[in-house]
Amino acid sequence: MAGSTFGNIFKITTWGESHGKGIGVVVDGCPAGIPLCEEDIQKFLDRRKPGQSRYTTQRKEEDEVEILSGVFEGKTTGTPISMVVFNKTQRSADYSEIASYYRPGHADYTYDMKYGFRDYRGGGRSSGRETIGRVAAGAIAIKMLSMMGISVNAYSRAIGPVEADMDKMDLAQCSENPFYIPDAQAAQKVAEYAKEKMAQMDSMGGIIECVVQGMPVGAGDPCFEKLDANLAKAVMSIGAVKGFEIGSGFATAKATGFENNDAFRMESGKVVKETNHAGGILGGISDGSNIVLRAAVKPTPSIAASQKTVNQSGEEIDVSIKGRHDPMIVPRAVVVVEAMTALVLVDALMANMTARVDSIVDFYKK
Amino acid sequence: MAGSTFGNIFKITTWGESHGKGIGVVVDGCPAGIPLCEEDIQKFLDRRKPGQSRYTTQRKEEDEVEILSGVFEGKTTGTPISMVVFNKTQRSADYSEIASYYRPGHADYTYDMKYGFRDYRGGGRSSGRETIGRVAAGAIAIKMLSMMGISVNAYSRAIGPVEADMDKMDLAQCSENPFYIPDAQAAQKVAEYAKEKMAQMDSMGGIIECVVQGMPVGAGDPCFEKLDANLAKAVMSIGAVKGFEIGSGFATAKATGFENNDAFRMESGKVVKETNHAGGILGGISDGSNIVLRAAVKPTPSIAASQKTVNQSGEEIDVSIKGRHDPMIVPRAVVVVEAMTALVLVDALMANMTARVDSIVDFYKK
Amino acid sequence: MAGSTFGNIFKITTWGESHGKGIGVVVDGCPAGIPLCEEDIQKFLDRRKPGQSRYTTQRKEEDEVEILSGVFEGKTTGTPISMVVFNKTQRSADYSEIASYYRPGHADYTYDMKYGFRDYRGGGRSSGRETIGRVAAGAIAIKMLSMMGISVNAYSRAIGPVEADMDKMDLAQCSENPFYIPDAQAAQKVAEYAKEKMAQMDSMGGIIECVVQGMPVGAGDPCFEKLDANLAKAVMSIGAVKGFEIGSGFATAKATGFENNDAFRMESGKVVKETNHAGGILGGISDGSNIVLRAAVKPTPSIAASQKTVNQSGEEIDVSIKGRHDPMIVPRAVVVVEAMTALVLVDALMANMTARVDSIVDFYKK
Amino acid sequence: MAGSTFGNIFKITTWGESHGKGIGVVVDGCPAGIPLCEEDIQKFLDRRKPGQSRYTTQRKEEDEVEILSGVFEGKTTGTPISMVVFNKTQRSADYSEIASYYRPGHADYTYDMKYGFRDYRGGGRSSGRETIGRVAAGAIAIKMLSMMGISVNAYSRAIGPVEADMDKMDLAQCSENPFYIPDAQAAQKVAEYAKEKMAQMDSMGGIIECVVQGMPVGAGDPCFEKLDANLAKAVMSIGAVKGFEIGSGFATAKATGFENNDAFRMESGKVVKETNHAGGILGGISDGSNIVLRAAVKPTPSIAASQKTVNQSGEEIDVSIKGRHDPMIVPRAVVVVEAMTALVLVDALMANMTARVDSIVDFYKK
Repeated sequence: MAGSTFGNIFKITTWGESHGKGIGVVVDGCPAGIPLCEEDIQKFLDRRKPGQSRYTTQRKEEDEVEILSGVFEGKTTGTPISMVVFNKTQRSADYSEIASYYRPGHADYTYDMKYGFRDYRGGGRSSGRETIGRVAAGAIAIKMLSMMGISVNAYSRAIGPVEADMDKMDLAQCSENPFYIPDAQAAQKVAEYAKEKMAQMDSMGGIIECVVQGMPVGAGDPCFEKLDANLAKAVMSIGAVKGFEIGSGFATAKATGFENNDAFRMESGKVVKETNHAGGILGGISDGSNIVLRAAVKPTPSIAASQKTVNQSGEEIDVSIKGRHDPMIVPRAVVVVEAMTALVLVDALMANMTARVDSIVDFYKK
Repeated sequence: MAGSTFGNIFKITTWGESHGKGIGVVVDGCPAGIPLCEEDIQKFLDRRKPGQSRYTTQRKEEDEVEILSGVFEGKTTGTPISMVVFNKTQRSADYSEIASYYRPGHADYTYDMKYGFRDYRGGGRSSGRETIGRVAAGAIAIKMLSMMGISVNAYSRAIGPVEADMDKMDLAQCSENPFYIPDAQAAQKVAEYAKEKMAQMDSMGGIIECVVQGMPVGAGDPCFEKLDANLAKAVMSIGAVKGFEIGSGFATAKATGFENNDAFRMESGKVVKETNHAGGILGGISDGSNIVLRAAVKPTPSIAASQKTVNQSGEEIDVSIKGRHDPMIVPRAVVVVEAMTALVLVDALMANMTARVDSIVDFYKK
Repeated sequence: MAGSTFGNIFKITTWGESHGKGIGVVVDGCPAGIPLCEEDIQKFLDRRKPGQSRYTTQRKEEDEVEILSGVFEGKTTGTPISMVVFNKTQRSADYSEIASYYRPGHADYTYDMKYGFRDYRGGGRSSGRETIGRVAAGAIAIKMLSMMGISVNAYSRAIGPVEADMDKMDLAQCSENPFYIPDAQAAQKVAEYAKEKMAQMDSMGGIIECVVQGMPVGAGDPCFEKLDANLAKAVMSIGAVKGFEIGSGFATAKATGFENNDAFRMESGKVVKETNHAGGILGGISDGSNIVLRAAVKPTPSIAASQKTVNQSGEEIDVSIKGRHDPMIVPRAVVVVEAMTALVLVDALMANMTARVDSIVDFYKK
Repeated sequence: MAGSTFGNIFKITTWGESHGKGIGVVVDGCPAGIPLCEEDIQKFLDRRKPGQSRYTTQRKEEDEVEILSGVFEGKTTGTPISMVVFNKTQRSADYSEIASYYRPGHADYTYDMKYGFRDYRGGGRSSGRETIGRVAAGAIAIKMLSMMGISVNAYSRAIGPVEADMDKMDLAQCSENPFYIPDAQAAQKVAEYAKEKMAQMDSMGGIIECVVQGMPVGAGDPCFEKLDANLAKAVMSIGAVKGFEIGSGFATAKATGFENNDAFRMESGKVVKETNHAGGILGGISDGSNIVLRAAVKPTPSIAASQKTVNQSGEEIDVSIKGRHDPMIVPRAVVVVEAMTALVLVDALMANMTARVDSIVDFYKK
């Protein structure tokens, strides 16, 4: 079953595995007329590339993007935009051992069972490198959203037990520390926590939060295509994400209706909400407030500490995963959450244009 | 944009609003040969029907299902199965007042903005009654899963601050208390909590947990159609659900790799996992362990306590929502979570049959 | 595999078999604000209902449509519109014999092989009654198109060897003769031809032509979703249609480029085409000229004359199909071709609204 | 609206324009385990590459395919297969003039209207080079079909007024003449006809026929996803195709039921049809006979003879299209028809595996 396509109107199809010839994406349904060049994409890819700090993998990958189609004279043409990052260094040798056993917390076992065999080099299609295509496509979506006055910003809300203090929230801080956390003090605490865990050859999880500002009312749908449902799928489809919540999320389970309902009031002639427990979505449709979502990211499964597992011959063995792995996934996944969020929004905003017959009649009167 | 269809191979399309002529669903892509009668569906609908206890709405609705197509001589024919529950009592009068203002926590405002007007009777399409179609379709999916030895069971894991003690977990308890909670002692505590909140004309939230047993390895996909991503969308598309997690979910954010990785080992010649933090899914593909997921359900937004809001003329007003509303959504939503879970599983299991060319060649050799 | 849903944005799902409880359709993605009542639908259904003349089946079916959802205060709400025609007379007895053998030219054999058994009453899902849902949905699409100044008119271009003289083309004639042919003289010739064939207990085929006037430029897509490709699928999905052509169609195979190219020229400041061999579509996108398409319809396979076939036990037998069958399918299929054409156009026109980023930015500025 | 993706289970997404950096395709949903190398693809691309004879364009393009992902150790892995043909020579200069006017019979005008501008180099996305991706993907589908004993063969049935004599039909002849016509005598007549038209700076159309042998019973669907409907869409989505028919096609319009019905009979214990007017499909489902379809291909619109048109400033002008254009499209389009046919079949065959619940239960019992 084809599972590498996402979106209805603004549709992306990703391809590529960790140690193949390259990784790429085809963006189809992108409207014509968006100014676009490789630099627009590259700056997003640079945020997820490895080797940026001692807290991410020490592999050096340049991840340079090339646009192969769909842009002419500096603007999107409305036809498919194909983008590729060629893999420059292919060190299959590093991975030869893991071909024979199933790494705990990885997809080795399920791939073998499903497909009969697997591309074991660097995780193949289950590698974090699969997200390159998502980020490249998301960069276009984010550019398009910005033309409409909509911004999408994600950051580390927590890493391990250390949580950012949202009262000190400062987005500018994110690029000042290697954890993409918007609170300088928390960054320091994370550094200490990370030092300890890295010494133990262990790894860390965390929580990514994403805030969308400037969202118009009306995007989304009443039933299965609820905006939050699609955001959930988008974010949960990122490897290592194990939980998703919108607005107050799991906290609403303990709240009462009186506490959780957001009162409506008027502000400069516009309907606004006094609070935003709903996270910007009511009945599956954007309500004009900020959209706020969170993703729980599990700790990197590849750890150097010794673990029990089985090999393909069915023998129980002890393994210690070698190689240069991220001790935490969160900082590099922040931009992936932004990308997936933007893709859902762009799709929903375009879909919403046909919600009323009057808009359609008007469009063709011109 | 069409948003009332769910699934790829086993595809359902729901229709109907709270106070219209009826509510229904068309199930398309259901395999031929499943023994099916109305009683198979009715027993699931009965679990969500109102008026079952003092903790759910006191409205009396029979919700009797009729199968209109797709079944012949007691078996599904492989063609669309249309099912309908006709609304017997249409009390539009009860709802005339709410037409003029926006209920906090409801979709009134977003519907008006998106579509230009709304069917204000009983919430129209945003009513909980929309789930009737999901449950009816889910009943068929569950029946089909049972033919493959797979069971799907959901229950209240928590209501408000009261959590079930999973060590005392007893599924049989669920039908013994009005909260569908598998722990008799917890049920008692919920009763007390509910009494207090109902006296305050307030409402309660909670957490639903769903466990799938007997799931084969291999269902799901490596990328956007990850099994957990589709489960997330399915469950988050249920009105009032604000959070989703799989396996250890948000707890993994605080765990380390060593703690969170599930070691593989052999058991009677089969690969199994020592723990199940992954919740039965690795790399988006079922791993043969139980699938375990949780949904955070917000408190019922319709409360009798006085709240602030605005009306369609842009005036700020105080409102107190009348009518017979559920003080908690959780107990009636349990069966909806089961239904949505089953729909995703059936679809993924069918999709998985084409994962290997050998299986396809074999199929047509016969 | 689910195969009863058609369309991307304006999406319909049909259900029901000939002798089941009813036949229906769910229209999802229909924009809000279209004035709609049952009479709007009924007038289209009446054009396909049986018993209208001696040249169609003598069965009497009222085919009264009921709208069950999606319309409030006389307008579409933007949520799914469910429509049903309940079968009033269920004469399964008439069909008991055909359960045992495979009617030539029918789907009996392929259904049995695919599904293991079939609903043999009146052809089950393969019955012409399946088109009721298409026509009901198409009626909404046609109403929406008329709000945009677009008309869709189909008619019999030929029945058997008798072709309408397009120089005498008079649409008003269609309702004056039982063949829906826009040429009074041709109608007379068809009557003679039909008399002869009916006396021989044989049946007739023909060609349906459909013309769309007022179509704006821009609907359709460059690649797989070419407007003509979708029209082809839509029309070829009608039972008994064996061929499809757009514009000059098969005649272009014999033409040269010079003959076949439509020269562009200016007319009152607008680009127009001097001829319309292209049939209103260039490169898969509507060019502003009339869209002209044709469908080849095979003769009714159910004939009273004796034919050879085999039964389920694998014995060769002679059969003579009893019952009141249409001696020709064409006249009743005309409205089905209109419906399917309209559905494709509505979908393409909505999709086209997101072709340029400027339109999207403008839409949300308001 | 995204329109460059085709198929449900075996899904392809094409990208690229005539004079961009390259042309490619992503094949998603391809089963694991198919032996695949670049040579398997190249031999199909070679059949559509230009410069093969004096009757096709004299441009020299090598069209060398590279597989970028989805194949490991010589076998497909079940994950997306990305293939690309890089454009080696980019002669934009040749096309600078046509930027300013609308070529008759081309998509220049509709692209400009839809998207606001167009990539005018060599037709951009509307170029015949777009089919490279289809053929590359189709090569995989054809390989997979051959593993199941199914063959797909297309050929020129007619070019201009010259038709192949099907009694002398000899597939081996196809590669012996530049027209891909399976009749040596007809080839000679086409050569004469072509000589005449080329001297007149004019172009020719024709008819492609495709025959599928070894097709099992059961692929396809009763309603919108009828096998013939999907074949129609697939084939009509090829640029220049203006008509489609299955089996006896348009000829059935003049036939009677008695003439057109294919009698069933027994042959070595199997149900077969005495004739095959149906073209191998009954009720939208394959019946086990050969599938036979035809496509009408218009004459190349680019001709050197002088034509009338308008330019972007709205002036009426005379143009003569320069450059090295195919005097006929048919011979190079033959392999494209094979590719599109194979893609539909593979998809339908995989979908059919879930038609019966027994097959599903059996699959998971193993």
